[in-house]
Amino acid sequence: MSKGGVEERLQALEAKEEIRELFNRYGFSADTGEARLWSEVWATDAVYDRADGSIAGRDAFFQSIESPDGVHKRLIEGPGSVHATGPLTIAVDGDTAWAEGPALVWVRKDEGYAVFSLSYNHWDLQRREGRWEIVRRIGRPVGPGGALEVYRNWKAGPG
Amino acid sequence: MSKGGVEERLQALEAKEEIRELFNRYGFSADTGEARLWSEVWATDAVYDRADGSIAGRDAFFQSIESPDGVHKRLIEGPGSVHATGPLTIAVDGDTAWAEGPALVWVRKDEGYAVFSLSYNHWDLQRREGRWEIVRRIGRPVGPGGALEVYRNWKAGPG
Amino acid sequence: MSKGGVEERLQALEAKEEIRELFNRYGFSADTGEARLWSEVWATDAVYDRADGSIAGRDAFFQSIESPDGVHKRLIEGPGSVHATGPLTIAVDGDTAWAEGPALVWVRKDEGYAVFSLSYNHWDLQRREGRWEIVRRIGRPVGPGGALEVYRNWKAGPG
Repeated sequence: MSKGGVEERLQALEAKEEIRELFNRYGFSADTGEARLWSEVWATDAVYDRADGSIAGRDAFFQSIESPDGVHKRLIEGPGSVHATGPLTIAVDGDTAWAEGPALVWVRKDEGYAVFSLSYNHWDLQRREGRWEIVRRIGRPVGPGGALEVYRNWKAGPG
Repeated sequence: MSKGGVEERLQALEAKEEIRELFNRYGFSADTGEARLWSEVWATDAVYDRADGSIAGRDAFFQSIESPDGVHKRLIEGPGSVHATGPLTIAVDGDTAWAEGPALVWVRKDEGYAVFSLSYNHWDLQRREGRWEIVRRIGRPVGPGGALEVYRNWKAGPG
Repeated sequence: MSKGGVEERLQALEAKEEIRELFNRYGFSADTGEARLWSEVWATDAVYDRADGSIAGRDAFFQSIESPDGVHKRLIEGPGSVHATGPLTIAVDGDTAWAEGPALVWVRKDEGYAVFSLSYNHWDLQRREGRWEIVRRIGRPVGPGGALEVYRNWKAGPG
């Protein structure tokens, strides 16, 4: 494969690290309940396409974490959660990228832990002012046929 | 440690990413049930050494995913699965590499998820025509003594 | 962001890989029960700050794995375990670094697997004689408020 020069190859490796860190920031801000930080991993006009309804726009993302009566505060962050993403395949093309892979949310339950959600995911990302953000996420619960619905790009590969 | 020149160091970092992506391709093609793609992450003469019997050769790998009566279609992909590998330690030496670490298979069960398998693994890999593939995998279920049977190279380290 | 020269950027990428491999060495030596190797992922004067009491100094780390009556041999390594760390955000500054993220310990239980522990973690690391080691780990069980207690650096980011 044609890999380009040193600068381009370093940037590609660094971009993958930055995107993994973006997903960790997504997880950490969800687990600490910091709605503003969580909403800012999404682009201002981002869409999260889910099986049970979509979320669109940064205000809606903010509210989904901030609302005291929402699912997040009551059932996820409240009892204690871990949002873990990956392993991910990430492909970077300049200031855009996509990522695909699973996401798992653990919650504290009784004396142990339960899987709150497990999903197949496709993300479209963009870099704006030097900072990666999620433009679109398609997520479906792990179950019959779900992977085929969501995993769209991995076959062509990241290269 | 002696690290070599910029080109060599970039290639080592890129090879680790490519090998992680190979394992993701392994997982995604298992979860989508794409037998041909899954069989092609293995070398043509690859061997998967398992506690309950080995699989050898790409045709056998293909059949293990494709067979409608096999364990995979009935108990794993059918209900919905996630194959997740890692965290992995990977060591690259030119066109050969090894990797060690855990692998976990989740399956949909009732309204939640169950661990179908959890294993210790050693993989030998080779790069043929610019593409990494698995030559040999040794996998054992997590249980007493299993880690010592399988983890062979990590002590010497990847460097 | 100012990224420095090629040498500096390569070193930063390599250091993150080395630190991930350190955490894998942590996990593999715990799962194989190799007390000496496990104790050596810690600095000689390292401290592990836990909710139920701290461990300090390499001898104490060695004993925690080696003791036949200890929790590790009886309840974790004995039945069979997987120590998995991540996904992690890692920030490197010369010969020091920090990492943050979850850690999960699986143990064999009956015919399946159970989560023995799930925690939020902050690690301080140093590189001494070319080798990374853990200077301090703060770990708290996943539960209400735990993430806010432990995740200290991620907001400022790794850059």
